[in-house]
Amino acid sequence: MADIEIFEAGDLVLQSGETLHRAKLAYKTYGELNANKNNVVVFPTFFGGQHTHNEGIIGEGRALDPSKYFIIVPNMFGNSVSSSPSNAARPDNADGFPKTSLYDNVACQHRLVTEVFGIEKIALVVGWSMGAQQTFQWGSLFPEMVERIVPICGSAKTSRHNFVFLEGVKAAITTDVAWAGGSYNEPPLLGLRAMGRVYAGWAVSQAFYREEVYLTLGYESLEDYLVRFWEARRTSADANDLLAMIWTWQNADISNNQKYGGDFGKALCGIRAKAIVMPGRTDLYFPPEDNELEVAQMPNAELRPIESIWGHLAGGPGFNPPDAKFVDEAITEILAS
Amino acid sequence: MADIEIFEAGDLVLQSGETLHRAKLAYKTYGELNANKNNVVVFPTFFGGQHTHNEGIIGEGRALDPSKYFIIVPNMFGNSVSSSPSNAARPDNADGFPKTSLYDNVACQHRLVTEVFGIEKIALVVGWSMGAQQTFQWGSLFPEMVERIVPICGSAKTSRHNFVFLEGVKAAITTDVAWAGGSYNEPPLLGLRAMGRVYAGWAVSQAFYREEVYLTLGYESLEDYLVRFWEARRTSADANDLLAMIWTWQNADISNNQKYGGDFGKALCGIRAKAIVMPGRTDLYFPPEDNELEVAQMPNAELRPIESIWGHLAGGPGFNPPDAKFVDEAITEILAS
Repeated sequence: MADIEIFEAGDLVLQSGETLHRAKLAYKTYGELNANKNNVVVFPTFFGGQHTHNEGIIGEGRALDPSKYFIIVPNMFGNSVSSSPSNAARPDNADGFPKTSLYDNVACQHRLVTEVFGIEKIALVVGWSMGAQQTFQWGSLFPEMVERIVPICGSAKTSRHNFVFLEGVKAAITTDVAWAGGSYNEPPLLGLRAMGRVYAGWAVSQAFYREEVYLTLGYESLEDYLVRFWEARRTSADANDLLAMIWTWQNADISNNQKYGGDFGKALCGIRAKAIVMPGRTDLYFPPEDNELEVAQMPNAELRPIESIWGHLAGGPGFNPPDAKFVDEAITEILAS
Repeated sequence: MADIEIFEAGDLVLQSGETLHRAKLAYKTYGELNANKNNVVVFPTFFGGQHTHNEGIIGEGRALDPSKYFIIVPNMFGNSVSSSPSNAARPDNADGFPKTSLYDNVACQHRLVTEVFGIEKIALVVGWSMGAQQTFQWGSLFPEMVERIVPICGSAKTSRHNFVFLEGVKAAITTDVAWAGGSYNEPPLLGLRAMGRVYAGWAVSQAFYREEVYLTLGYESLEDYLVRFWEARRTSADANDLLAMIWTWQNADISNNQKYGGDFGKALCGIRAKAIVMPGRTDLYFPPEDNELEVAQMPNAELRPIESIWGHLAGGPGFNPPDAKFVDEAITEILAS
C-alpha cells in the first residue's frame, strides 16, 4: 500500500459507544491543492471498493481531472485499507471490530480534510453506492463547507427493502460453518461464494441478463460470469470486512446524529449544496423512488436517473462507458456552476 | 393427507433419462364433473405450495366456483405431497431424487386428466408462479384440449435473471454443512433460515417494505416478519424438496420437448387457448417484461398486469384481497367468454 497516506485518527469513540483504537483512515489524493484551497473534491469509496476502484472516473480530460482538482479519496472503515476487522490490532480485529456508522466515517473524513489539509470549502463530494451515502452525509453534516454533491446510486438512508436484501447477503456468509462467528483462520469460501451468487441477481437488472450483457464483457457464459466476476469478487475479500461494511450500510441514515436527532426530513433539508442525485433507473436495491422522495425534501437538488440496464452497477466508477460518460457530464456541469 | 387422491403413474421415464419409480401424483378435486365433461379447470400448485394453498381462490361466489366447475389441483413433483425427495422410496429419496422437468409434471397431469377422468376438453388452466409455468406448458402441449389459460406471475420460460436469483436461493441452503449434499438426517435449519432471508427481499417489492405492509398483516416489526413469515415458511419445508422444485423451476421452458424441439417462439405460437397473462407489476423475478415478450408471440393472448406493490406475491392465491379480486374478475371474464 505504498501509494496511500494514513491519517492517524487516534482512539475514536464511535456512535455505538465502542472505541476504535488507533483508528487509521487511509486515503489517496490526486492533483494539487491550489493556493485558495477551492479546488477540493472528496470522493469516498463504495462497499467492497478501495481507493483504486474510484480511479475509473478520475483522469485528465474527465470531470474529475487531477490537473484541475485536488481529489481526496478516503477509504471507508471496513474496506480492508482503512481500519478493518482484517487489519486492526487486538482487540479490534476480526469479530472484535466495533460498529462503525456512516456518521463515524464522515466525521473522521472531516477531520482528515480540516486537520491535515486545512480545507474550509469543498467544491464537490461525489460517490457511488455507499459512497453516495457518505456524500449525502457530508452535505447534511457540513452544509457551510460542501458546495456541491453528486450521490450516485445511493440513498441518504438505507431503505427497509435494501436492509432486507442485505439480510440475505449476510445470511449467505454466516451460514458457512467456516465463518465460525467471525473467528475463522481460513476464509469461509463457501459462504463467500454463496454471497457472490446472492449478490449477482441484485446488482444488475433483469434486462442485463435478458440481453446477456456479460457476454460482451469477456465472459463465456452465465456460469462463467457468476464464477469469475461474482464469486471471485467476494472470495477475494475478507468476510468480516464485508460484514463490517454491511453493518454500516444497513444502519446508514444521515439523520442519525446529534445534529438532526433522527429527523430525516430535517437532515435532507439541511443539505444546502447544489445537488444532482443520480439513481440507476433499474437499480434493484437503491431504486430511483427512494431518491425521488429524498430530492423532494432537498432545497437545491435535481434528480437525474441514469437510463441504463446495468442496475446498481450503472453508476459504478467506469463500469459501463456510456453510463460513466453520462455521470461524467453531470459532474462537469455541476462543477462549472 | 386423507383429503387427497393419488394417481399411481407407475415408473416414469423422465426427460433427464432418469426414472421416477412408482410415481405418485397427488391431487384434489373440488366440485363435480358434469355429464358433458366441459366444466373442467386444472389449477397446478406453486413453488413450496400444496393443493391446500390453492384453496385461497376456490369457493362459492368466486370465479373458481366448485358449484359450477370441476377443479382439479395436481400437486407438483417435489412439493412434499406428490413424489418428492422427502417421501419417495429408495433409491429415489433424498439426494437420489431424479430431475423432474416442467414437461414431466404436465405430461403426468395430462395422464391423470385423461386416464382417470376421461376428460377431452379443459375449460381453463390457471396457476400462479410455477403454477403459471405449468399453465403455459399445458396450453402449449395440448392446444386442442385447453380452451383458456390464465398464467399469473409466471413465465413460459425461466429467464436468466430468474435463474440467477435461484442460484442465490440454492446457495443459501447448500452452504449449510448440515445439508450434507442432501443426505441429512436433521434438517439444515440454518440454511433454510438463510434461504428465507434471501427470499424475503425478492418476493415482494421495494414499496411493500417502504410502506411497511407487513405491519398490516399481524407482524410487529420487520424482523418479526422475516422470522415468522419467511424463516418459518422455509424451515417448515424439506430442503431436498425445495431443491428439487428449484431444479424444475430453473430449467422450465415450454419448448423443451419433442413437440417443439427448443423453438420457444413456436411453443408460444402453439398456445391456441384464449389467454389472460397476469404478471405482477412489481414482481422482481417474473417481471412483466418477460410476459410482454411472450404475449407478443401468442396468437390469442392479452397482457393484464396486476397493479400492486405486493411484488411476486400479488398473484398468490388470496394473499392480498384487492389483488385476488382483480385476478378473480379476470378468471370470471375469461370463463364467460
